[in-house]
Amino acid sequence: MIAENVLQKIRAIVGEEYVLESELDRFGYSYDSSFIPLFPPHLPDVAIRPKTTEEISGIMKIAYEYAIPVTVRGAASCRTGGPIPLKGGIVLALDRMNNIVELDEKNMMITVEAGVLTGDIYNYCAAKGLFYPPDPASFKFSTIGGNIAEDAGGMRAVKYGVTHNFVMGLEVVLSDGSIINTGGKSIKNVTGYNLTQLLVGSEGTLGVITKAVLKLLPMPKYRTTLLLMFDSLDGACATIHQMLQAGIVPAAAELMDKTCLLAIAKHRKFEFPPQAEACIVSEVDGAEEEALHKQAAQIREIAERNGVVELKIADNQKDADDLWAVRRALSPAVGALAPDRVSEDISVPRNEFPEIVRKIKEIVVDKYNLAFAVYGHAGDGNLHPSILCDMSDPQQAKVVHQAVDEIFTATLALGGTLSGEHGIGITKQNYLEEALGESGVNLLKAIKKAWDPKGIMNPGKIWLEGEQEI
Amino acid sequence: MIAENVLQKIRAIVGEEYVLESELDRFGYSYDSSFIPLFPPHLPDVAIRPKTTEEISGIMKIAYEYAIPVTVRGAASCRTGGPIPLKGGIVLALDRMNNIVELDEKNMMITVEAGVLTGDIYNYCAAKGLFYPPDPASFKFSTIGGNIAEDAGGMRAVKYGVTHNFVMGLEVVLSDGSIINTGGKSIKNVTGYNLTQLLVGSEGTLGVITKAVLKLLPMPKYRTTLLLMFDSLDGACATIHQMLQAGIVPAAAELMDKTCLLAIAKHRKFEFPPQAEACIVSEVDGAEEEALHKQAAQIREIAERNGVVELKIADNQKDADDLWAVRRALSPAVGALAPDRVSEDISVPRNEFPEIVRKIKEIVVDKYNLAFAVYGHAGDGNLHPSILCDMSDPQQAKVVHQAVDEIFTATLALGGTLSGEHGIGITKQNYLEEALGESGVNLLKAIKKAWDPKGIMNPGKIWLEGEQEI
Repeated sequence: MIAENVLQKIRAIVGEEYVLESELDRFGYSYDSSFIPLFPPHLPDVAIRPKTTEEISGIMKIAYEYAIPVTVRGAASCRTGGPIPLKGGIVLALDRMNNIVELDEKNMMITVEAGVLTGDIYNYCAAKGLFYPPDPASFKFSTIGGNIAEDAGGMRAVKYGVTHNFVMGLEVVLSDGSIINTGGKSIKNVTGYNLTQLLVGSEGTLGVITKAVLKLLPMPKYRTTLLLMFDSLDGACATIHQMLQAGIVPAAAELMDKTCLLAIAKHRKFEFPPQAEACIVSEVDGAEEEALHKQAAQIREIAERNGVVELKIADNQKDADDLWAVRRALSPAVGALAPDRVSEDISVPRNEFPEIVRKIKEIVVDKYNLAFAVYGHAGDGNLHPSILCDMSDPQQAKVVHQAVDEIFTATLALGGTLSGEHGIGITKQNYLEEALGESGVNLLKAIKKAWDPKGIMNPGKIWLEGEQEI
Repeated sequence: MIAENVLQKIRAIVGEEYVLESELDRFGYSYDSSFIPLFPPHLPDVAIRPKTTEEISGIMKIAYEYAIPVTVRGAASCRTGGPIPLKGGIVLALDRMNNIVELDEKNMMITVEAGVLTGDIYNYCAAKGLFYPPDPASFKFSTIGGNIAEDAGGMRAVKYGVTHNFVMGLEVVLSDGSIINTGGKSIKNVTGYNLTQLLVGSEGTLGVITKAVLKLLPMPKYRTTLLLMFDSLDGACATIHQMLQAGIVPAAAELMDKTCLLAIAKHRKFEFPPQAEACIVSEVDGAEEEALHKQAAQIREIAERNGVVELKIADNQKDADDLWAVRRALSPAVGALAPDRVSEDISVPRNEFPEIVRKIKEIVVDKYNLAFAVYGHAGDGNLHPSILCDMSDPQQAKVVHQAVDEIFTATLALGGTLSGEHGIGITKQNYLEEALGESGVNLLKAIKKAWDPKGIMNPGKIWLEGEQEI
């Protein structure tokens, strides 16, 4: 509990109406979009909605003085528990920090506050012919601050990269309330360590990201969307691989297995050939329409060598939207197949994609007799295997956890990693040492201690505490 | 001095012939390519040439135990003093760590030891149709380890990015001798803080980089090189700017002022129109020959609006080499204009390029009456203003230092940074706090302390020591 005199100081900084103390309000700030159970809830002692960097600095000075935990929250669309205030204290909700500070068309960069929705950034830039590529599935409702904290990925990563590839500079409030600026608009910048990239993906454990300078690209003039059905998952994987080898870098290459296709067909009007075992939705984009037609023809050729059974090419926006609707319907459709879906976010070297899918099938289906669906960003080796289960059955929950353990071990054995785009948060911290080794984890802890000596920034995340504490 | 019994242990690890102790040998490891005077020399107590990561780990364990400074050295082509062993101790020369470990064509990645020459990596990949883009001016003789330690840039940065954009993973020996691996071949990877990008550009102060996994691209099929002469520097800058705005991202866009042109003409056969005040050498590349022709036509149109007085387009490799020879001759040609050349490496937001050139001219020519030449990577806002002077004249040296101070202040005022691609090292550490603020510098020091608690890794670099020490 935070003492009344401390709360008084906080109210004086942000205004009474932005300091939320009722149990109901606090419950609203206790969860995110991960599968971490809602009960027992992790209520913050107070949720604060500051409007400015200076207010945040003032709050952090108080939090530092009284050693109060602070967990930053954007839209809470995190899949790994990042915004859950595990140790109580303060939740700092940045939804009011939603100004687009500046669009610098000459340098093709935009400066935004952390609470701006990523989709709003996309639209704002698109209206000026500029392009902010990162598109996590949540981009219409997630905030840029959250995207940066988790280094969010998305479908366009295969061609354009992920959030960190677009972050040029940050304004950050440190745990003691001091404000720093990292990086900036200089494209080349090697002045000191790369603090910007250390902060991207740091999951709120090093400071409060309050503003960001983001790089933009010219909006591609033309896009062509393709939907391809294959008679085998291997054929689909091989097609993506051969496209990349041929120098065709698609703006997206999304793969779905048959379970996914069946789930979508239950959910909405969607027909596919009975022999289809896998589907790719892909997009190529560029400045030259003819070059795209040529690429589409090359993709068709490659697909035909790999057992394609249906191929649709959209040459107008409406048809493209229809093809993409299949992919967009996927997550809720798969979610509806079972009471629970335990979905992972592993990432492997691109060429190991078919192999990890085979291994997961062996573990989940052959060994543990569970149902699963697999989909993912095959173009960059990042996949989301979903185990379809009922976690209220303790016996099944135990088996699911065992299967997930084995999936992680298989992933690491193939040179892969625990998380491609969702972060570690709470849900994967058990596995961190297996992934990074003891020396690696100790380095993370040492950096954390250097930045946040009192350990008040989003405590309890990424690594396990306890006897490993340095 | 290192005690004989400690040297014995080191000899036992790497073999006697790779432990160099004579004064002449040690002198050879005391300098780099910066303008830091050779005298008084900074001799290491010993230079060691290890062959393997395990040997380095063994040496670091000893250095850690006895708190001996360790400075890592690649080809010593650094422009800021990075490999100079300021505090004596051990120089660890990685020239024998020159194996290409693996070319993974399927994942388009290469794994190399730190001592491999960057040019060798380029050629090795090119023979397989793959492309490692970063091309610092030194790339034919500098090592990849040094490129990574300094986050080297180059001419292709405007389109392809700098070294850090291509580093996927590292093997690093920490100050206590432990070996860690960061990142890897997974394209998306958000497991823990981004240690890989913290290490890139850390100038040898956090650990010994021993191996790197680098991302490759398909080699562009076609290239077109252009040389453009303008009647004003502003016209040249505007042309590059308008190219980028039009979505033409050149693989290089190098700018030279008239002083540079005159210097080259002294140095080699080279004619240019008398009214030329500035020159651009640019290259566009891609998979489609026609698209390049179209881009070249667009560039011509833009240049014609901005006072172009001569335009040459090379459509074969020999002609392209001839055009590039102009740019390649530049650095020695400018160097020959005066006894000394104090060359900087500032970087500004791209649209401030003409403004910083004007400011530098005001400072150097109008205020201090010094000669200068300016050239740089105008496409990315990184420029190398060179003051032509005689530093053996103490009065002139004082004025030059004053002019450099003012150039840095003007750069920072325009949102720029001290170093685009050369690092801070010794030569710019006076200015670091002005650039990053006290909180920023304290964070660097805190990270350093967390990684290197005894302060033995390349001590004395990046920031000033003394009373600021935390």
